[in-house]
Amino acid sequence: MDEELRRQARQARKRKGLVIVNTGNGKGKTTAALGILFRAWGRDMRVCMLQFLKHRNASFGENKAARKLGIEIQPTGDGFTWTSPDMDETVARARHGWEMAQARIGSGTYDVVVLDEFTYPLHYGWLDTQEVIAWLREHKPPMLHLVITGRYAPEPLIEFADLVTEMRMVKHPFQEQQIRAQPGIEF
Amino acid sequence: MDEELRRQARQARKRKGLVIVNTGNGKGKTTAALGILFRAWGRDMRVCMLQFLKHRNASFGENKAARKLGIEIQPTGDGFTWTSPDMDETVARARHGWEMAQARIGSGTYDVVVLDEFTYPLHYGWLDTQEVIAWLREHKPPMLHLVITGRYAPEPLIEFADLVTEMRMVKHPFQEQQIRAQPGIEF
Repeated sequence: MDEELRRQARQARKRKGLVIVNTGNGKGKTTAALGILFRAWGRDMRVCMLQFLKHRNASFGENKAARKLGIEIQPTGDGFTWTSPDMDETVARARHGWEMAQARIGSGTYDVVVLDEFTYPLHYGWLDTQEVIAWLREHKPPMLHLVITGRYAPEPLIEFADLVTEMRMVKHPFQEQQIRAQPGIEF
Repeated sequence: MDEELRRQARQARKRKGLVIVNTGNGKGKTTAALGILFRAWGRDMRVCMLQFLKHRNASFGENKAARKLGIEIQPTGDGFTWTSPDMDETVARARHGWEMAQARIGSGTYDVVVLDEFTYPLHYGWLDTQEVIAWLREHKPPMLHLVITGRYAPEPLIEFADLVTEMRMVKHPFQEQQIRAQPGIEF
């Protein structure tokens, strides 16, 4: 095998779609995922974000920006949260969101898919982490970059991921100074 | 003072431009700042980013995206780095970048200014951290959000900031799997 073939083999091995997890109790998990979308969009890559804990009719800064750019940012639930009193409904919504995610990941239509706040359905057991990972191992296109955000990333997800960053809160104005969340910055 | 006046006073006190620092050895510091730009742009806020360690003619994903949107992302140096053999030139370029930053911050033209990789000139002493903070205390418009990224955020900057997040590397593909940096994701 000559040098050129070896070089090609090396490149093929090293270039792949990453599984990226942004976790931890600090700010910047979703925001960094938005930055990835923005950057990839700049390179004409096909991108989308599914939001697992945002309200369907919410109009956050990111949704407004995405609408302007034609980037798909899609809420998956009807504002369901882990404080919902109706657990059956919460689980059903999480499953519905995961089905939306599977359809997009499996479609081959995207270069980057972000599953925003997707750690929560895993952490709270609304979805089975091992089943989700098994499905991804089988169905995620090799070149697709998958970004998952949220606190409490389960250990098997961290093991499965290529790139894991913990956003750690060092100082937060809501605690120390009682400053309100700022439009355009926090949401 | 009636309840309405008290409420207004409370709101006035709590609504302010934040000084945000994204630091640590992990990924996502610049990317989260880009996410803030994207989100704020979505709200029609006036935003810009000055890059302290990027090459003047670089065309990264963020620069391409910014050009498409008309967002100002401006390199400040000519690819100067802390490995430059010529210290006088490195210091001169850092000072030039800081003058560009002062002009933008002081102009009143922006709602959000990002100083990307700005911690390095402070950490390496090319700029005096105390002088920078003193200038910001006097000249930063109260409602302007200022975002500073980079490793090794100096302690006085952390004390000065409202919101500090440490991006901590949990797992990185370049270390474990020798995967190359991916266009659209990392740059």
